[in-house]
Amino acid sequence: MLTRADIEAAHARIRAYVRRTPVVTLEPAALGLPCRVTLKLESLQHTGSFKPRGAFNRVLSSRVPATGIIAASGGNHGAAVAYVARQLGFPAEIFVPEIASAPKVERIRAYGAKLVITGLTYADALEASLERAEKTGALMVHAYDQPEVLAGQGTIGLELEAQAPDLDALLVSVGGGGLIGGIAAWYAGRVRVVGVESEACPTFARALEAGKPVDVDVGGIAADSLGARRVGSHMFEVAQRFRLRSVLVTDAAIREAQRALWRHLRIVAEPGGAAGVAALLSGAYAPGEEEHVGVLISGANTELGSIEG
Amino acid sequence: MLTRADIEAAHARIRAYVRRTPVVTLEPAALGLPCRVTLKLESLQHTGSFKPRGAFNRVLSSRVPATGIIAASGGNHGAAVAYVARQLGFPAEIFVPEIASAPKVERIRAYGAKLVITGLTYADALEASLERAEKTGALMVHAYDQPEVLAGQGTIGLELEAQAPDLDALLVSVGGGGLIGGIAAWYAGRVRVVGVESEACPTFARALEAGKPVDVDVGGIAADSLGARRVGSHMFEVAQRFRLRSVLVTDAAIREAQRALWRHLRIVAEPGGAAGVAALLSGAYAPGEEEHVGVLISGANTELGSIEG
Repeated sequence: MLTRADIEAAHARIRAYVRRTPVVTLEPAALGLPCRVTLKLESLQHTGSFKPRGAFNRVLSSRVPATGIIAASGGNHGAAVAYVARQLGFPAEIFVPEIASAPKVERIRAYGAKLVITGLTYADALEASLERAEKTGALMVHAYDQPEVLAGQGTIGLELEAQAPDLDALLVSVGGGGLIGGIAAWYAGRVRVVGVESEACPTFARALEAGKPVDVDVGGIAADSLGARRVGSHMFEVAQRFRLRSVLVTDAAIREAQRALWRHLRIVAEPGGAAGVAALLSGAYAPGEEEHVGVLISGANTELGSIEG
Repeated sequence: MLTRADIEAAHARIRAYVRRTPVVTLEPAALGLPCRVTLKLESLQHTGSFKPRGAFNRVLSSRVPATGIIAASGGNHGAAVAYVARQLGFPAEIFVPEIASAPKVERIRAYGAKLVITGLTYADALEASLERAEKTGALMVHAYDQPEVLAGQGTIGLELEAQAPDLDALLVSVGGGGLIGGIAAWYAGRVRVVGVESEACPTFARALEAGKPVDVDVGGIAADSLGARRVGSHMFEVAQRFRLRSVLVTDAAIREAQRALWRHLRIVAEPGGAAGVAALLSGAYAPGEEEHVGVLISGANTELGSIEG
């Protein structure tokens, strides 16, 4: 299983390429919440989401063939891989499903990757990318289920622990689970790491019920970032080891969290990126009054018009 | 003149009421710039701009009469005073000109202050508020030209010096100049503080030419935050003492800076809040390669639809 040493090595590998994103600790009673809250603004990362961390770590720890790198993505991971490829000088081919939001598709194109739009969900795009990779031999950078990807995302935990050393809990949104898997491996039980999912994409909740990753139908407003069909095997190992749990939020709660973040904090978050705040505002996660809760704002690749009003 | 001790006292007075806003240091060559850049995200302050710092300090260092507090504002200061009044339990009356942008007017209303919309520019609203204050005896909280207001804004310098101790220069947008006056008084020449104004609101540039604050016609896209008719006397004293200078940017450069902040950093800034970045991107401020430049993002009260695209 992933260790702190793996994450420290990932940090040494990628630190020149990623931003150390800032945190902001809110004032008492902010957003009407009883607990202390610290937000980690990973939405300010390159490409507008946390994804470059894992992608840089995967590519920088691999031999890249002349055919370059390949990935499937709901959008954020694709943008990150396209960005990594441009920064490191490799060709890239990115497969996204039709639900990928316009800002994400534009980013992938802007970074100069070859874009293939195929299928309805992330799982369809993944299948197509795997077939293609077999033909070309390109390096597959998985959106969440490779140890190097988890280790890269885990560097958020390493940074956050230095920035906010006294957290009691940390809310992290879950799609395929690479993000929470890496961060929970870093904290190794020293902080209560809680997964937050939209009710329409409950991959982690269903995996916990079943005792193993299982296929789930996905939809709703966060499907383009949380819409993996099942959580990864690597994250699930971490989740069982450290007894992570899942809380579910509605699409309406996510939208309300996006609005509250903008109205009260002038922070823009995409639906998947606002899920942690939605868990607090909706009561899906009920903190104690003495608790210091960290919330990861994981991405901001959304149309601004969807937030106002 | 304002001293570091005044600013330290202001910090002790207001720190329970304001957010310590985060900074983010950009990677080498970010935004195509040759220098190191650190942004101070004061746009994440309560009410969406830096203004509560000065307003809290003014009100907390005064005896407030039963008739409460009164202010005139292009919008941000009014929202801040309305917020301060609500937090501290005083009635407030806010005068704004017709150019005040909708998000700012909404904020003032939402905080429960009495709102008076009058006149075309900030100067008209100020005149009306002064007449009214004479009748009611309410405590006037000036948008920029009171020592307590400068001292409150100066707490940004105090915070930023701890967050980024090795800055060579700091770009600060200028309207009436309370912000730059307070910050420059904090740094007292240890960092090169540069004022950035829109060409359509050149109050500081004209004051420097004239050797004293003079009236200037104001307009353009940043007029609702930078549109004071002249800089304040308190800031001008600081500006002369520490030989501050002014650089000018066009409205087009400001719009481009807003777009670049959103596209590359997922940061939302209003026109006045993006002026410092506009100075870097347009070359109005030309840093050396070895320079570490701080840029204050001073506000984010804007319609999101104005930024995208």
